[in-house]
Amino acid sequence: MTTQTNTINVIDQRFAPVADLLGSFAAADPGYSAQLAIYQAGNLVLDASVGQDCTRETMTGVFSCSKGAGALVISLLVQQGLLDLEAPVAVYWPEFAAAGKAGITVAQLLSHQAGLPGVEGGFTQEELVDSRLAAGIMAAAAPLWNAPGIHSYHALTMGVFMEELARRCAQESLQDIFERRIRAPHDIDFYLGLPEELEPRFRPVLKDNALEPAPFIDPFSAFGLALNSTGGFDGPKGPSFDIIDVPNERTIREAGLAALGGVGNARGLARLYAAATTGFVDESGDEHAPFLTAETIAAVSQDRVYGLSRANGMPGAFGIGFMKAHPNNDFGSARAFGHDGANASLGYADPAYGLALGYVPARAEANGTGSRGGQLSVLSRQVLLSS
Amino acid sequence: MTTQTNTINVIDQRFAPVADLLGSFAAADPGYSAQLAIYQAGNLVLDASVGQDCTRETMTGVFSCSKGAGALVISLLVQQGLLDLEAPVAVYWPEFAAAGKAGITVAQLLSHQAGLPGVEGGFTQEELVDSRLAAGIMAAAAPLWNAPGIHSYHALTMGVFMEELARRCAQESLQDIFERRIRAPHDIDFYLGLPEELEPRFRPVLKDNALEPAPFIDPFSAFGLALNSTGGFDGPKGPSFDIIDVPNERTIREAGLAALGGVGNARGLARLYAAATTGFVDESGDEHAPFLTAETIAAVSQDRVYGLSRANGMPGAFGIGFMKAHPNNDFGSARAFGHDGANASLGYADPAYGLALGYVPARAEANGTGSRGGQLSVLSRQVLLSS
Amino acid sequence: MTTQTNTINVIDQRFAPVADLLGSFAAADPGYSAQLAIYQAGNLVLDASVGQDCTRETMTGVFSCSKGAGALVISLLVQQGLLDLEAPVAVYWPEFAAAGKAGITVAQLLSHQAGLPGVEGGFTQEELVDSRLAAGIMAAAAPLWNAPGIHSYHALTMGVFMEELARRCAQESLQDIFERRIRAPHDIDFYLGLPEELEPRFRPVLKDNALEPAPFIDPFSAFGLALNSTGGFDGPKGPSFDIIDVPNERTIREAGLAALGGVGNARGLARLYAAATTGFVDESGDEHAPFLTAETIAAVSQDRVYGLSRANGMPGAFGIGFMKAHPNNDFGSARAFGHDGANASLGYADPAYGLALGYVPARAEANGTGSRGGQLSVLSRQVLLSS
Repeated sequence: MTTQTNTINVIDQRFAPVADLLGSFAAADPGYSAQLAIYQAGNLVLDASVGQDCTRETMTGVFSCSKGAGALVISLLVQQGLLDLEAPVAVYWPEFAAAGKAGITVAQLLSHQAGLPGVEGGFTQEELVDSRLAAGIMAAAAPLWNAPGIHSYHALTMGVFMEELARRCAQESLQDIFERRIRAPHDIDFYLGLPEELEPRFRPVLKDNALEPAPFIDPFSAFGLALNSTGGFDGPKGPSFDIIDVPNERTIREAGLAALGGVGNARGLARLYAAATTGFVDESGDEHAPFLTAETIAAVSQDRVYGLSRANGMPGAFGIGFMKAHPNNDFGSARAFGHDGANASLGYADPAYGLALGYVPARAEANGTGSRGGQLSVLSRQVLLSS
Repeated sequence: MTTQTNTINVIDQRFAPVADLLGSFAAADPGYSAQLAIYQAGNLVLDASVGQDCTRETMTGVFSCSKGAGALVISLLVQQGLLDLEAPVAVYWPEFAAAGKAGITVAQLLSHQAGLPGVEGGFTQEELVDSRLAAGIMAAAAPLWNAPGIHSYHALTMGVFMEELARRCAQESLQDIFERRIRAPHDIDFYLGLPEELEPRFRPVLKDNALEPAPFIDPFSAFGLALNSTGGFDGPKGPSFDIIDVPNERTIREAGLAALGGVGNARGLARLYAAATTGFVDESGDEHAPFLTAETIAAVSQDRVYGLSRANGMPGAFGIGFMKAHPNNDFGSARAFGHDGANASLGYADPAYGLALGYVPARAEANGTGSRGGQLSVLSRQVLLSS
Repeated sequence: MTTQTNTINVIDQRFAPVADLLGSFAAADPGYSAQLAIYQAGNLVLDASVGQDCTRETMTGVFSCSKGAGALVISLLVQQGLLDLEAPVAVYWPEFAAAGKAGITVAQLLSHQAGLPGVEGGFTQEELVDSRLAAGIMAAAAPLWNAPGIHSYHALTMGVFMEELARRCAQESLQDIFERRIRAPHDIDFYLGLPEELEPRFRPVLKDNALEPAPFIDPFSAFGLALNSTGGFDGPKGPSFDIIDVPNERTIREAGLAALGGVGNARGLARLYAAATTGFVDESGDEHAPFLTAETIAAVSQDRVYGLSRANGMPGAFGIGFMKAHPNNDFGSARAFGHDGANASLGYADPAYGLALGYVPARAEANGTGSRGGQLSVLSRQVLLSS
């Protein structure tokens, strides 16, 4: 028999139904463990963990939630005037103009529209960790399409592009900017580059053992390229990654790849988005002003693309690096922006409600509309509407 | 036991199978009542009502069929040279250039591509009835997206935009233009602004009591904004509308909102589109020439967008204000244009067949491909093809 | 009882599982007959026929696989500098500028984005066979849409446009260029214009008698226009075509319409794409260099559109004349290009694998992901990845 340890702190009683829903997930599934944290109007209103595989302090890999952190760094560069979203990428990165890409704008690149999901045969880990190498490869590459409005998820290269633009515009690594300007001053439990001394707080991502084996993904398709796939076989640059294992490698979380190398917990994700949008009050009662202006938020969170992904035929919506909510992933309102991860981790801000939410399951699960994270998001808005 | 009163006048025997299909709907469902009227090549070929809740003369709310009437006014302004579809909206409405909207064209605005589905918290009824107020709010608003080709249904603001453009281009209200140039000279039983003296002919829209309650629609999502929703809860400007109730309020049908305030019957809708495209012969035998030229019809009925709606993920196709037929709403050929309404009312012209059709159910029902209105539309074309 | 005659020549043992899969289709269905041929890295690696209705030499109609042959001719014109894909069509074909089409580029026209799927009432056979007549009709036509990124399959007019552009740019018919520069020098069993003396090798396309009757396709819809439909009824220019019968008429295969008049076998289709991309070694051991450069292949095979077809609401992806693989038609990698036909014939190159594949069923069957041709394509890549 499994024993569960639930620690549910409902600071704002309006959110008691949300806590109850999280508890009901745990009651229904003995193998379930997860963290949920919510800020509203700058206050921590719910801070919880359920199940035996995590506490509220445990940190783990949150995969593409990392892209949200990277996009917040990009947002700061936009706010400072160092990066113009409508400018061609080549203004900042001249080599990118190769192979017919001179006209691709920063906004197109950062909303998965450039047609550069990966490289045949995959990147090596070294090329991803020192993303100047991966950036050099992609700068020379021809895009898969030449048409406005096509998009497909750039699972790894999105991080490479954000990192390269940070280097080019700010002469500093994206990870250093994140640490210096975002994480440290707000004491956020979310790291792009987990320090060695915090390794004891890291728990590896657990796999969903019930998951069906994936169907054939052609490593040379837009989907396979994005996943750095070598088709389940050893490729020219080594064996394929299993995506769920990636942040379980110290090298990846030490580098803190903006694509998928971030490590944190639900409270860290929630605080990250509160710090960006509403500001927040910390444990000492100190007030932190939001680090993004309303103007910046509008610019980076406006939809830049919506439609069927070229890679998998499913709908997607993106702003500048951020995922946007849409009917198949209804985590928020039209103003919500954030990102989910391969294990169904989720972090976002929803300025229409003053919400910032982090959700981190211990074991990889499904994401999107109807998922546990999706249900918690919907209910969080409903309790505010009815109160 | 329910008694039905069917009045089915088949003037052109080619349309007898269409009359039979309508009769079969009534035979199969004692609660069903509806009107159907069809003009072909300018002649009334079928004029019918079935069921106990309407006669052929009864008028009721037809919701977004009103947008078709509004778009016919816009078409007249285009035909006169008062409105250039390819021009930026701001040429006619300078305030609209605010918040990054200087480049949005009239064609984009009137085909649901501007990203302006509504306002957070909803419009008040006063703001919609005096749409200069709602127009002022939207002129200042930032669009939800910044990308070519995205669309979502602008359920209320489409009417606001058409009304504002009419005022700006013709110095006259859209409703007055409709009455003076379209309705009165052709004696059409469809009103944008139902006169007090005709109220006795109005029957409220009946609800479909079997309908499932709607799932959560976030009032701050593109869908909720379009529906002027406050989430089923009292919003800052008052309680939410139930869309089906809207034209049951005298204020709305007195104002004749181009978005959804029109009142009429099936014969009125059919005659409206016949008057626009084929002309028609009236009850006195007088011939009315079509009020739109072939050139104008081509300009306003050409597709301007097709794809998944940003709001609900379902496919949609639009010309200038008009709905276009598509696989999920197959009311006509590639040349067909018109509009349906929330209660499944339907009015359109199909110039490829010389058809103009109006369908008005007494009780709200489903619309789109396979609906009763859709089946009647398909059969109307089939009888012409086989004759 | 049915007897089958299978001739399966596995030259490269890596492809034995592919041969086994083809054999399993035949074992499971006594009425099944098909050809399959595969080149890899320029060598014929599998050459097979199964079932009683064809040998490996039999030639039959392969419908829109013909468009792939036509697109290879277009590719040669691009390679020679005779045709600029980014130029307006009207640069080469001034009459095409009529009716608002001055800005439509060659790339848009040849990727099904021009909104010109056909003509109301259908083309006569004479107009299609002498495609200057059909081209003249389409040059005057107004497009169905006026919006970037909308596409629908131009089943017949795509051939008309390729033929007209060949005439305009090279002063030679597309069919003559194909014969002189592609088919004859490589001795390919695929003809755009089947010579009288080869008629004995032609077997009519067999119908799938189990197929459900098609639902109503409005002859004036984008779908009906594309199919040259008159709605199953006699139209102004004669009765409707049944698409499957088309290449069974000598006139059509004599003319070798680039839209759907090609005749060949699986080995011919495979060799056609090998000749274009990898080159190949012929039966005498002579080496044939590829007739397209890597640069040309990149230009013509890059995606130009992906999304829902305006005509039938199903996803599609196209390069310059070529079909591209996508989730609903997963015949290859992101670099694959080719075309399938109405009977599920399939021919393509996949440069990421050095593959060129031809598949021709005797009896019309389904195509797309999960079809027999699709399964054979997937397995062909899997055997290469695992070897």
